[in-house]
Amino acid sequence: MTPAVITFLTDFGLSDPYVAEMKGAVLRISTGACMIDITHGISPQDVLAGSIALDRALRAFPPGTVHVAVVDPGVGSARRLLLAEIDEQFVLAPDNGLITWAIARARRVNIRELTWRPAQATATFHGRDILAPAAAMLSTGQLADDSLSSLDNPVLLNVRPATCLDETVVVYIDHFGNAITNVPFELLHDGLTVDGVGEVRRTYSDVEPGQAVALIGSGGLLEIAIRNGSAAATLGLRPGAKIGVR
Amino acid sequence: MTPAVITFLTDFGLSDPYVAEMKGAVLRISTGACMIDITHGISPQDVLAGSIALDRALRAFPPGTVHVAVVDPGVGSARRLLLAEIDEQFVLAPDNGLITWAIARARRVNIRELTWRPAQATATFHGRDILAPAAAMLSTGQLADDSLSSLDNPVLLNVRPATCLDETVVVYIDHFGNAITNVPFELLHDGLTVDGVGEVRRTYSDVEPGQAVALIGSGGLLEIAIRNGSAAATLGLRPGAKIGVR
Amino acid sequence: MTPAVITFLTDFGLSDPYVAEMKGAVLRISTGACMIDITHGISPQDVLAGSIALDRALRAFPPGTVHVAVVDPGVGSARRLLLAEIDEQFVLAPDNGLITWAIARARRVNIRELTWRPAQATATFHGRDILAPAAAMLSTGQLADDSLSSLDNPVLLNVRPATCLDETVVVYIDHFGNAITNVPFELLHDGLTVDGVGEVRRTYSDVEPGQAVALIGSGGLLEIAIRNGSAAATLGLRPGAKIGVR
Repeated sequence: MTPAVITFLTDFGLSDPYVAEMKGAVLRISTGACMIDITHGISPQDVLAGSIALDRALRAFPPGTVHVAVVDPGVGSARRLLLAEIDEQFVLAPDNGLITWAIARARRVNIRELTWRPAQATATFHGRDILAPAAAMLSTGQLADDSLSSLDNPVLLNVRPATCLDETVVVYIDHFGNAITNVPFELLHDGLTVDGVGEVRRTYSDVEPGQAVALIGSGGLLEIAIRNGSAAATLGLRPGAKIGVR
Repeated sequence: MTPAVITFLTDFGLSDPYVAEMKGAVLRISTGACMIDITHGISPQDVLAGSIALDRALRAFPPGTVHVAVVDPGVGSARRLLLAEIDEQFVLAPDNGLITWAIARARRVNIRELTWRPAQATATFHGRDILAPAAAMLSTGQLADDSLSSLDNPVLLNVRPATCLDETVVVYIDHFGNAITNVPFELLHDGLTVDGVGEVRRTYSDVEPGQAVALIGSGGLLEIAIRNGSAAATLGLRPGAKIGVR
Repeated sequence: MTPAVITFLTDFGLSDPYVAEMKGAVLRISTGACMIDITHGISPQDVLAGSIALDRALRAFPPGTVHVAVVDPGVGSARRLLLAEIDEQFVLAPDNGLITWAIARARRVNIRELTWRPAQATATFHGRDILAPAAAMLSTGQLADDSLSSLDNPVLLNVRPATCLDETVVVYIDHFGNAITNVPFELLHDGLTVDGVGEVRRTYSDVEPGQAVALIGSGGLLEIAIRNGSAAATLGLRPGAKIGVR
């Protein structure tokens, strides 16, 4: 039988044992689990960046994958936990908007509340104590139906994929300093230019080193980059910066 | 058969291939090994932080797990290597105090010296050349009895879990800036307050964003945090800072 | 059957989901793949550092391992992709010099161009869209012969392992601040001294804490270190710095 794939996306960083503790919790239930890190470098409590990274992960992994996403400023409060089935994959996450980008771009979505709780759980680490074991149970067919209940109004972020070019805004800065916008490639057409950058190109090497370039990035969103440089540093772009496209 | 779980905890960082070289050494012996990173973000040569992280790892993983811990300023010197059996898990580490916190909180401990050496080993990377292959051999039943000898006086750190509240001191700062103390939850009782912070609460969201909170953290130790902020940055807390609890 | 080992070496960093997207692409083809990170901390577009790290990885992993190396400033341009068979292991990489150090120190090398392309590939992320699936296909015997063609003149870097001591230069600074040179141990003999440091020793603890030491590092290259300190910070060493050895 194929081993289940379980992924982890958090704002925990990698300097502490916290990520490993979630994996230990999975291994206590599912010894053969294939566990993959999406990223643990989301800025602390940056739910928007986590949501965009989670959306990319869903596009990359095979059907049946279980994604555990923990950017959770409200841990221990009354905020709910949820299980979202999104295009044949699964997301376990706090109900705080993390799933916003994934469901905005999905074909089929089914969201329920995860009501299962272990006999003992801390008030400060639900990723390890609730979500990781739930992922292990889900991937091994042990998550009982009464662990879930209906949930009609999931929390959603205000910042979502754009529906017209007037809404263009930077939503994510990556490791290379590329400034990724909220504009999906479906909104773009030939002949468009980005203010201060120029026309939309195919790839970084379509301009000279050090020059700015607009292109459709590998996640299908309009992106502004500096070839062999950092658009964030050079152009001063940050999440929230408005971009003119015409 | 269940694949063996082998974990790695080091101060190597992630910018070099060193961690991977240890995994390659394992795979040369045990092709099906399930390998998990605890953390490689321990500050260079910070044996205390490594010891606290290792203790947390032991609480999180299933019986039979083999942990390779390498924070090893004395590599190549006469310092010994050890194999510690701690509550049905195993630790391979230099004998420099790394196991202090794990054995202080364990129920059952058996420590021996690892005397096995490969035919060829460098003088600068025993993690790759000795400990990783020993872990692979241990997890596959190939570590012979004559690879070990008795060891009665392991090196221990002076900083250990507190035995009374007068000893309260910060021992570890995590990625979020939470200041973790040496006080295990067993020492705490209702009505205690932490000087300059207030009474001990249940979780971060029991205070307003930006406020300080004392609580029992997910590792079972008293911790001082700023909700949605950094206690280390805001309160100037560092390992060694004394904390008043009354 | 033994699961195939596939490794990843990039300059992507760990803050984005990019590394995980390559792993998802592998898992879509090879569900049982054993995937190991060499490092993703190569400085953006630093092909030399990537080449040196890749060489170390090849020495550490078992025969049959497939290494995916992506430090790729020319992505989307006309630069070729290649499959190098090096001493019973495989490297998939852009043809930009990344394989320089691995082939300089190898016994047997066979380099071909990877001409296979998927039905759909972005112009900006060939690591995910071409190299990762090619690695999965190679490791499961699905990479057809017509996916490859001959390649006689791979791009090579100018900075290579030294052939005489007059060429000694720093080529890599590691996480600890150790300054690794281009001098393989075969060039060294007893009685040599390094200018400003002293004679070549066996290990870090052969000098007092805070003192500089020259030794043969764990990768078989002459290295300058400060015991329990950073040679890069203290001695101002950077890649390209000339070192006198006599």
